[in-house]
Amino acid sequence: MDYQSILEDIAHAVQPEFGKGRVADYIPALARVSPAKFGMAIETLHGESFLWGDAEEPFSIQSISKVFTLTMAFALEREGLWQRVGLEPSGNPFNSLVQLEYEKGIPRNPFINAGALVVADVLLNHYPGPNTAVLEFVRKLAGAPEIRFDLEVMRSEQETGYRNAALAYFMKSLGNIHNPVEKVLGLYFHQCALAMSCRQLARAFLFFANHGALPATGERILALSQSKRLNAIMLTCGFYDEAGEFAFRVGLPGKSGVGGGIVAIIPNELAIAVWSPELNEHGNSRAGILALELFTTMTGMSIF
Amino acid sequence: MDYQSILEDIAHAVQPEFGKGRVADYIPALARVSPAKFGMAIETLHGESFLWGDAEEPFSIQSISKVFTLTMAFALEREGLWQRVGLEPSGNPFNSLVQLEYEKGIPRNPFINAGALVVADVLLNHYPGPNTAVLEFVRKLAGAPEIRFDLEVMRSEQETGYRNAALAYFMKSLGNIHNPVEKVLGLYFHQCALAMSCRQLARAFLFFANHGALPATGERILALSQSKRLNAIMLTCGFYDEAGEFAFRVGLPGKSGVGGGIVAIIPNELAIAVWSPELNEHGNSRAGILALELFTTMTGMSIF
Amino acid sequence: MDYQSILEDIAHAVQPEFGKGRVADYIPALARVSPAKFGMAIETLHGESFLWGDAEEPFSIQSISKVFTLTMAFALEREGLWQRVGLEPSGNPFNSLVQLEYEKGIPRNPFINAGALVVADVLLNHYPGPNTAVLEFVRKLAGAPEIRFDLEVMRSEQETGYRNAALAYFMKSLGNIHNPVEKVLGLYFHQCALAMSCRQLARAFLFFANHGALPATGERILALSQSKRLNAIMLTCGFYDEAGEFAFRVGLPGKSGVGGGIVAIIPNELAIAVWSPELNEHGNSRAGILALELFTTMTGMSIF
Amino acid sequence: MDYQSILEDIAHAVQPEFGKGRVADYIPALARVSPAKFGMAIETLHGESFLWGDAEEPFSIQSISKVFTLTMAFALEREGLWQRVGLEPSGNPFNSLVQLEYEKGIPRNPFINAGALVVADVLLNHYPGPNTAVLEFVRKLAGAPEIRFDLEVMRSEQETGYRNAALAYFMKSLGNIHNPVEKVLGLYFHQCALAMSCRQLARAFLFFANHGALPATGERILALSQSKRLNAIMLTCGFYDEAGEFAFRVGLPGKSGVGGGIVAIIPNELAIAVWSPELNEHGNSRAGILALELFTTMTGMSIF
Repeated sequence: MDYQSILEDIAHAVQPEFGKGRVADYIPALARVSPAKFGMAIETLHGESFLWGDAEEPFSIQSISKVFTLTMAFALEREGLWQRVGLEPSGNPFNSLVQLEYEKGIPRNPFINAGALVVADVLLNHYPGPNTAVLEFVRKLAGAPEIRFDLEVMRSEQETGYRNAALAYFMKSLGNIHNPVEKVLGLYFHQCALAMSCRQLARAFLFFANHGALPATGERILALSQSKRLNAIMLTCGFYDEAGEFAFRVGLPGKSGVGGGIVAIIPNELAIAVWSPELNEHGNSRAGILALELFTTMTGMSIF
Repeated sequence: MDYQSILEDIAHAVQPEFGKGRVADYIPALARVSPAKFGMAIETLHGESFLWGDAEEPFSIQSISKVFTLTMAFALEREGLWQRVGLEPSGNPFNSLVQLEYEKGIPRNPFINAGALVVADVLLNHYPGPNTAVLEFVRKLAGAPEIRFDLEVMRSEQETGYRNAALAYFMKSLGNIHNPVEKVLGLYFHQCALAMSCRQLARAFLFFANHGALPATGERILALSQSKRLNAIMLTCGFYDEAGEFAFRVGLPGKSGVGGGIVAIIPNELAIAVWSPELNEHGNSRAGILALELFTTMTGMSIF
Repeated sequence: MDYQSILEDIAHAVQPEFGKGRVADYIPALARVSPAKFGMAIETLHGESFLWGDAEEPFSIQSISKVFTLTMAFALEREGLWQRVGLEPSGNPFNSLVQLEYEKGIPRNPFINAGALVVADVLLNHYPGPNTAVLEFVRKLAGAPEIRFDLEVMRSEQETGYRNAALAYFMKSLGNIHNPVEKVLGLYFHQCALAMSCRQLARAFLFFANHGALPATGERILALSQSKRLNAIMLTCGFYDEAGEFAFRVGLPGKSGVGGGIVAIIPNELAIAVWSPELNEHGNSRAGILALELFTTMTGMSIF
Repeated sequence: MDYQSILEDIAHAVQPEFGKGRVADYIPALARVSPAKFGMAIETLHGESFLWGDAEEPFSIQSISKVFTLTMAFALEREGLWQRVGLEPSGNPFNSLVQLEYEKGIPRNPFINAGALVVADVLLNHYPGPNTAVLEFVRKLAGAPEIRFDLEVMRSEQETGYRNAALAYFMKSLGNIHNPVEKVLGLYFHQCALAMSCRQLARAFLFFANHGALPATGERILALSQSKRLNAIMLTCGFYDEAGEFAFRVGLPGKSGVGGGIVAIIPNELAIAVWSPELNEHGNSRAGILALELFTTMTGMSIF
């Protein structure tokens, strides 16, 4: 399929979306990003790359990082993990304390903030230097040793992250955080501050389209069944309170972040990443969602 | 693939589940069903049928009927429907008034009871004889003119359906039910009382594996994109508060009912139905869920 | 104390409130009432009456009727009643289904709509002709055989009372309504449609200031301890979601209705009723609340 | 009235309550307290004292301290305070995050933990040494310079106070905590660790029965209207989720703490304190509640 001209068609078709959303502005380092940025990257299992626009410019991946830490934790704890975090779509905005209270400190799924904090807590049990471990893991997946934390973003998050502190202390009071809250938040704020490009993201997600093995080396990151299951979680929970809508309109496993990035995969085929900083009211990239919808329409690709 | 021996293997493997669940007992007609009933049916796009156990005995399909009425309403109202019912997984038990209150009378999705009542209300706008229309539609899908309503079940539901009456009156007070509540409940209680066998269910769902067209005649029931979208809704919302767990463990679009039936489809391949009346705490058939998990494990089939 | 000149002073002081609120408009018969209506009446235990403005014009007492039916039910069932309805302030808008769901069908208190429906259900168990029983009871309290139901109001409520139907069916589904829902609603819509004047209301509430006995005849309506307890419920629950604010600003046991009426009592002294149809955002009469606050400030009367 | 023999009668009548409740055990210093402790003290506006049992033994006053800090804050900020904390009974358990989320960081009332944290934040704005200020204030009210913080209790609370940290960080994220969270928690954990006897508590609350002025010196602590209003808040909100029940059964303004203490006042008459560490399911002293109910029954005293 001629992916390059499809990317071009998509780029034109999403133009009317620009100017209609809002760039995340809760920290200065994100608010400063130009709303006009737009990049797309496709990486296929055949080893091809297709790029468009700002596809090689790193941006703050934010919640997309939850997929990486979940992968690490799932590889370490195949069963125990699911005693501490659920698998069900949230049904509430992504950082709801309400739900956490009714469910006694067990986050609904690993992609709401509370769930990602529990996942970070799990990694703290296994790695003496968890920040480095996460960074090395992501570099390996993407084949990109130049990936770094954006320390300005990290420090801003740390200074204003009261709600995440509330979530962590609340779960600690309910027994579902085992390490000191400051350490859990430290790892969490680092992972959210990972800066990656569309190209790096697409490459880092490609093993999910390859049943859990890195396409380049064949190294197995997750067992086959685990890889399928992570895809299922991405499909049902990957887009905050808009997961059902995304499944309906796009129908691919994926994950978004408030930096404006979205990555999705087509099993046995490819990974695709889009970046456009303007968000809709659910915190997902407006142009990004539309781009992926157009991609599935134009290619006829779908898991359904 | 040798589906017949796979069914046999599954039948043996699920034996330990029996006696651990509870048959639905909110109405006598359901409580009377033997917990030992167990049937499975596979219908493939190649026209093959594979049956096991009580595969041809009709049982009360209950919430599985919501897929049929949604299909009818979606065919009639491609866009308008989604102004009145959402697409997001529920995040709460299947007939929650709480959620409905917070979301101003718009049910989260068409498979919670409130959503199915809105769908019934839509059908009432289009059909002068809605009970007959639903019955004829299901008979056509299944190619089985002998399908009937179980009137004893229907009357029992009507007599004890106070919670559904509460849901309907509540949505009426919020403007999201347009017909008289009694008529909406009348249709709803009829559809839930449809009696079908595993074989009939598998056949009636086969068009979802065929991109929206009836395999036998080629008649288009839903447009291609609509068919994919209905599959997406089944995957994300088809199993009450256990949809994420089902996607994680099984990974197929499907729908369950408190009569103990489950139907699922594998796109481009087949539809499979299981019946076992003992339910887990989420209202889904215990042996049915396990049977489907084993089926995907044994066949390696998955949409992910 | 010169209550007549106090009423006059209050009447002037509340003038700026007019035009700032909204007359209840969910049924035509209420929406038609002139927002300029304003009446006050004081009845003392010494047998004096002080009237101002439209003090003798009947209006729809709406939720104030819940005090009368609760009194009847409390006289009949001293203990059992509190198994079916709670005593705690609501903490939520007055007709919340949310709270009812979390508390398994036991309304938080007898003055939210759900609680009043349970009280009506209790009266149905004791009176073959409950509408007449309520009417006769209120006539006796007020010494006013001319009190009637406003049948136009009653029929309007019945036609639009979907939310109350939802509440009743929901509690029926949870086992806390024992009679047919239509009968419970029938009584409830009648009691809300009682038409009474400020003077009649003040007189009908005077026994709460007299420890449970009718001042005129000495007839005991409630035991001493019951009368105190009903006063406590009025103080903590009598003003929807504004009960704490009312206790803070006014500090008297009382009850309001969306018809714009408020009645309050000062133990051992008097009962005072105010009518002004414009409501604040909590559904309480704007000028009525202010009038009572001024009354306690001017007289120095308070239970605290 | 012969208060001494009334205390004696009460002491006998509450015997059956012992052994039925649970001493607070979330920190060791509280869990160690003997469940057999029982003290009562009455202080009247005539200057009389009546004591029973362990009336002069200091215990951890816990949430009763919220009345003292609220009094200080109300004296400092007559209006502004109520922009940051509400006046409505909670309708939910005393430290609910749910309610706080729905009400955007404004605690329902100053006696739930969240509300007391906001009050502590207000005091931090006014006092450079807030711990000392609170201690001096309470010593003055009680005329007891020997009152101290129990530093063991204070340190235990600090170590395990994750839920309060969650509440404070959550309100900080919503803009309703202005000082650093650690400082707010520091003051809060100190105030809860005040150790006082029944006698000291009764004396410290006596000004609420005296319209806001210290009976001994005439010094005005609160304006008359403020004093009445604080009494109203105690009546409607002073007993966690059991405030309505307490108003119904006892009918006096008061406040309880999980240390097993309860203080209540009768306007123009007296203050009464009871201590019994065994709690009911709402966190209120079992024998304490009963003792106060008996007191009002035996004396006929009531504000209603």
